[in-house]
Amino acid sequence: MTTMQRIDAYWRAANYLSVGQIYLLDNPLLTEPLRPEHIKPRLLGHWGTTPGLNFCFAHLNRIIAERHQEMIYIAGPGHGGPAAVAHAWLEGSYSEKYPEISQDADGMRRLFRQFSFPGGIPSHVAPETPGSIHEGGELGYSLAHAYGAAFDNPDLVVACVVGDGEAETGPLAASWHSNKLLDPERDGVVLPILHLNGYKIANPTVLARIPEDELVKLMEGYGYRPHIVGPSHEEMAGTLDTVFDQIASYKDGRSARLPMIILRTPKGWTGPREVDGLPVEGTWRAHQVPLSGVRDDPEHLAMLEEWLRSYRPEELFDAAGRPVPALLETVPEGPLRMSASPYANGGELLAPLTLPDFRDYAVEVKSPASQSTEPTRVLGAFLRDVIAANPRTFRLMGPDETASNRLQAVFDTTARAWNAGIEPTDEHLAAGGRVMEVLSEHLCQGWLEGYLLTGRHGLFNCYEAFIHIIDAMFNQHAKWLETAKKIPWRRPVASLNYLLSSHVWRQDHNGFSHQDPGFLDVVVNKKAEVVRVYLPPDANTLLSVGDHCLRSRDYVNVIVAGKQPVLDLFTMDEAIAHCTRGLGILPWASTDEGAEPDVVLACAGDVPTLETLAAAAILREHLPQLKVRVVNVVDLMRLQPPSEHPHGMSDAEFDTLFTVDKPVIFNFHGYPWLIHRLTYRRRGHANLHVRGYKEEGTTTTPFDMCMLNDIDRYHLVMDVIDRVPGLGTTAAHLRQQMADARLQARAYTREHGEDPAAIRNWSWG
Amino acid sequence: MTTMQRIDAYWRAANYLSVGQIYLLDNPLLTEPLRPEHIKPRLLGHWGTTPGLNFCFAHLNRIIAERHQEMIYIAGPGHGGPAAVAHAWLEGSYSEKYPEISQDADGMRRLFRQFSFPGGIPSHVAPETPGSIHEGGELGYSLAHAYGAAFDNPDLVVACVVGDGEAETGPLAASWHSNKLLDPERDGVVLPILHLNGYKIANPTVLARIPEDELVKLMEGYGYRPHIVGPSHEEMAGTLDTVFDQIASYKDGRSARLPMIILRTPKGWTGPREVDGLPVEGTWRAHQVPLSGVRDDPEHLAMLEEWLRSYRPEELFDAAGRPVPALLETVPEGPLRMSASPYANGGELLAPLTLPDFRDYAVEVKSPASQSTEPTRVLGAFLRDVIAANPRTFRLMGPDETASNRLQAVFDTTARAWNAGIEPTDEHLAAGGRVMEVLSEHLCQGWLEGYLLTGRHGLFNCYEAFIHIIDAMFNQHAKWLETAKKIPWRRPVASLNYLLSSHVWRQDHNGFSHQDPGFLDVVVNKKAEVVRVYLPPDANTLLSVGDHCLRSRDYVNVIVAGKQPVLDLFTMDEAIAHCTRGLGILPWASTDEGAEPDVVLACAGDVPTLETLAAAAILREHLPQLKVRVVNVVDLMRLQPPSEHPHGMSDAEFDTLFTVDKPVIFNFHGYPWLIHRLTYRRRGHANLHVRGYKEEGTTTTPFDMCMLNDIDRYHLVMDVIDRVPGLGTTAAHLRQQMADARLQARAYTREHGEDPAAIRNWSWG
Repeated sequence: MTTMQRIDAYWRAANYLSVGQIYLLDNPLLTEPLRPEHIKPRLLGHWGTTPGLNFCFAHLNRIIAERHQEMIYIAGPGHGGPAAVAHAWLEGSYSEKYPEISQDADGMRRLFRQFSFPGGIPSHVAPETPGSIHEGGELGYSLAHAYGAAFDNPDLVVACVVGDGEAETGPLAASWHSNKLLDPERDGVVLPILHLNGYKIANPTVLARIPEDELVKLMEGYGYRPHIVGPSHEEMAGTLDTVFDQIASYKDGRSARLPMIILRTPKGWTGPREVDGLPVEGTWRAHQVPLSGVRDDPEHLAMLEEWLRSYRPEELFDAAGRPVPALLETVPEGPLRMSASPYANGGELLAPLTLPDFRDYAVEVKSPASQSTEPTRVLGAFLRDVIAANPRTFRLMGPDETASNRLQAVFDTTARAWNAGIEPTDEHLAAGGRVMEVLSEHLCQGWLEGYLLTGRHGLFNCYEAFIHIIDAMFNQHAKWLETAKKIPWRRPVASLNYLLSSHVWRQDHNGFSHQDPGFLDVVVNKKAEVVRVYLPPDANTLLSVGDHCLRSRDYVNVIVAGKQPVLDLFTMDEAIAHCTRGLGILPWASTDEGAEPDVVLACAGDVPTLETLAAAAILREHLPQLKVRVVNVVDLMRLQPPSEHPHGMSDAEFDTLFTVDKPVIFNFHGYPWLIHRLTYRRRGHANLHVRGYKEEGTTTTPFDMCMLNDIDRYHLVMDVIDRVPGLGTTAAHLRQQMADARLQARAYTREHGEDPAAIRNWSWG
Repeated sequence: MTTMQRIDAYWRAANYLSVGQIYLLDNPLLTEPLRPEHIKPRLLGHWGTTPGLNFCFAHLNRIIAERHQEMIYIAGPGHGGPAAVAHAWLEGSYSEKYPEISQDADGMRRLFRQFSFPGGIPSHVAPETPGSIHEGGELGYSLAHAYGAAFDNPDLVVACVVGDGEAETGPLAASWHSNKLLDPERDGVVLPILHLNGYKIANPTVLARIPEDELVKLMEGYGYRPHIVGPSHEEMAGTLDTVFDQIASYKDGRSARLPMIILRTPKGWTGPREVDGLPVEGTWRAHQVPLSGVRDDPEHLAMLEEWLRSYRPEELFDAAGRPVPALLETVPEGPLRMSASPYANGGELLAPLTLPDFRDYAVEVKSPASQSTEPTRVLGAFLRDVIAANPRTFRLMGPDETASNRLQAVFDTTARAWNAGIEPTDEHLAAGGRVMEVLSEHLCQGWLEGYLLTGRHGLFNCYEAFIHIIDAMFNQHAKWLETAKKIPWRRPVASLNYLLSSHVWRQDHNGFSHQDPGFLDVVVNKKAEVVRVYLPPDANTLLSVGDHCLRSRDYVNVIVAGKQPVLDLFTMDEAIAHCTRGLGILPWASTDEGAEPDVVLACAGDVPTLETLAAAAILREHLPQLKVRVVNVVDLMRLQPPSEHPHGMSDAEFDTLFTVDKPVIFNFHGYPWLIHRLTYRRRGHANLHVRGYKEEGTTTTPFDMCMLNDIDRYHLVMDVIDRVPGLGTTAAHLRQQMADARLQARAYTREHGEDPAAIRNWSWG
């Protein structure tokens, strides 16, 4: 058998196994004529993209074997799940991971049956699929994942099949430019294979229908050397030889541009040409299941059998159902198999970060709330040393906001990754920089996901409002983690850490469009096992939370922390204790003296905490007999019952802290309903009154923003007076004073364009 | 004065007015030396992009005047709000909209003062800005908005300045390909002006730093004829003449490609060259406020005065502060002014849709829940005739899912818009098609926003899970509507209508990645005045809701409706009554006979409603003495108090319907917490038990999906038995039967790969 014949045999085998997965319950080797009872009752799957994916697998395996090239495979059209599963089974890794799916006839039968079957495996490439780091569901992220995997893996080639449907999405269209942040020396290589099968679900694709010279220019414009390949083994093999020579040239500095492949094949290639008089192969009709109603339609049943036999399974599998030796010869060895690559089960490669002691970065706090610090600036110093101590396994992502978010200390030790033009006035740009900045939250997220899933660490800093841009990507990553945690062979990976700064309360420059704290609402919809939300109110608590998150595994951690100066509340030791508890009383701000309070002022988030403290100070001065308890919440998940979240507090703890019958005024960073949602089962819930962002905003002063949304100190005092019974005339008088103070502050702001000095300079001390 | 001199004067005037807005409280004409008290205490704004935006305004005005070309201007770098405001003031339209900002010295003072000032206007281009349909906040959507505005406006040119920062975003990168859906005959033209000022916030931009031949190829690859322009009036003017000749060629069919402009200028052009020894003009340091601390730093104050005087204001404004006649000569007339274009205040052009009578499409329902229909298929017939009756003012958007969502009846009357290659096997593709399909939710959303804001109508159909992709765009559009509603001169526009189909409960083909009903949680965070959520449970209610939404104005309407067959519950008249109420009792499914029930089974969403009905049937049969009330909710906002939402029910109504002390088992389409969030203030809330999607899923059968999340009929019966006291041993026995039935169904599914026939074929009758 020639090499091309072996590749073709492998391809036929993979196609056979793919069709079998979509259709067959039994009779996997076609040892008897196909009968209706061999067919699944519900035919679910996506054939259209599958033969093309198999084609790439078959050809890349030759390269791996010949060049001993470490490679992983990202299937952008991951709907073609059968392809990745077939490949893993042929390589033997499927049976290694799932021994009951043995590499024989019985295993093949189980392999077929389980696909898209209740109790079985999903129809897409998924965490269950060996060799995958990329779910085939929502489209658009394959190329960003591929680059994320390639960063800091200098010996790796990430073959990334981009579907021509997916290529129409925004995130994918932006991802091509990732090559401007790739370092030939320290990073691996991404080989994009743009697979033009011409159609998406029901439509032709744009890139398949523009003139070829435009397509070539587009890819050259993105900075690649495109190679066009038709549906031919010889063309694909010849091109891959050229392409991997070009990759070698790139790696040793002889060439600045990386190649990419444009592969044109018919959609549903090798499937039925025509069904019921309508063309199928090469059209959108091949997208899912080309032959329907196979159980009830003898003609379709016969066509299916003919289709399956067209791959000549008798040449591909022995009588026991094992792949014949010629097939197995094409399979690379051990971890070089793409389906067994440790890069695609990143936890296998994961090493803990070398972390400096975060306590060394602490702000000294002599008395609480008497001095101010910019929390993210302090965290920046810690991150600087994290980067320095982990020069190949940690990256900081941000959509051009790292300095804006005041993490600029990191530039003392590293640069922004940049491999395009540099001019004399530029600062902090270099190939190999650890800070990844491009004005695309999608790319930051996609790169980080790829980087984490291949066993590294990172943090994504982002303006709070614009993290919504990647809501859908967060959802998909959280779902990946939820599923992966249940798969024994998937090893834990580093958590995906968000630092949301430049938050809703301090958008002085930008106004309403930049004011949206709703990402937290999206996050808490995902399973409690994978999501964590922290709102450290000062610099030392941010350090403690940051360190904790960088050590964690398999979570999505969301940290909300401002970049503007806020009062320092905790010494480092106190901060650690507070963050470990997740919430607690601020005794110095409280007047309950350990007794049952008259009212609880709770707060979460830096600005709401500041206003809560100021309200507590007013109450202490003007209503000294009122027993006020101030509670600050850092770990939002603590508010839930333990049945809902592993961090959840028992009802007894909750009741002790918040009381069961006293008014609780909760001043919250985000939309107020989230607090109700987390606490509605608590006994005292009816007494809980939440203030938060209620979608009022514009470009105005910080305190005016608080007043617009009634989270300001004056309004909190009014809330207390309105809710604590029997406070008498002093309180009524104070209430009027507060209302007046609001009007005065508003008027001052409108006249002077800034907050009154008493507000700007307020501190507890 | 030559034409170039007039353009330059206009540009200088706009730049002067822009700097004035950022810095000045007073002394607008510099009639006296600049003093600290003339300076704003907080300097907020974005200078960097502003002079480039002003440059484009100045030059496009000449084209408009010379060619009488209808044109609007979309400022992708909308952070440069001062530019659009300056332009509108110079054109006189600002004073027309805001008479207190008169076109004289006093008006100029107010213009300066109000910018980014408490009680004033936002720092970005915003709804408050005359001539704008595009908020300058979150970046990435300018070009999609531009195309949306151009569709079906054959005489319009939309000049769209794309910032080189924005150009890095995914949505923008994908938007270039919108030209493949543009019809030269029926649509207008988009003129993209890619403004390379070289930097984003703190970084160089990718497109400014790739070789120019790559950039040109990229734009050619996107299908444009690029023209490169440097910072020169002559170059810009000459190029615009060429470009508008090319546009004319395109419009009359002599040329297939549209031009675009690549404009290279320094960032912060004409601003301070160097500040404190560091280069500013032409670097990222010019991004926001180039000179800081002006009040306290006499040197900076002097530099500011020098900078302002460099525009020679004495040549531009007369002693009264009015623009000199030479400036006003360059301004186009009346509605040709871009700042006064009715296209940019689309409500002025809005005509109601000609709607067929939706009752004509009704499914005949002889008895409730005895036959099944695919709701979206029925809606498709209605939409077909909406399209036919409104051939130039209605478009249907969808990311390649219109047929998948079973709206394919529309293809009986129209095609998909397509202006790229067409092959013989293709169907329903044509220039001018009313269905806009590309595999990008971002483009569907962006086009639709642009189309609506210029006075037309539309509907976006989307898989439910993937609508999260445009969460951030929804947020921004909702904020636009929230603000626009408060601006008297902004006329109401058609609502943005979503049809979310292929929803969480019926993802048989696709599994976990396609299961996410959380968009509703994002939607309800926005202001009650602009958001509406509907969950019609059958075809006739979908028709009624659909008609209602197409008639509405200034809302975002979210309709969740399945494409799979569901039982028909309502005759058309009943459906109208039910949808008008928004929720109501299903008397035929209830056994309370108008008396106080023992338990309320509430439901929202088609699949949860089906399971609720099946549970009610089981209870009726096995526990006939139990008084069950079945309540279906169509209009989710009805559940809130009237203080929270205009659709909100009074407590009295709520209590009458749901009782105050009986258990309510609420079976919900989405994440269960949303119902708690909407109802936590109700008296009976403690008795409310919500079932919904709890993030369990995979590719499995429809009923197995219900069981995985405990929304199935058997579990609902168990919930009732667990919560209604004193039901005795019959109920205990029934509970066990239900638990067994779940196990049996699960086992059957795992053996046979489909749901038991009794489940598949269940109906009430």
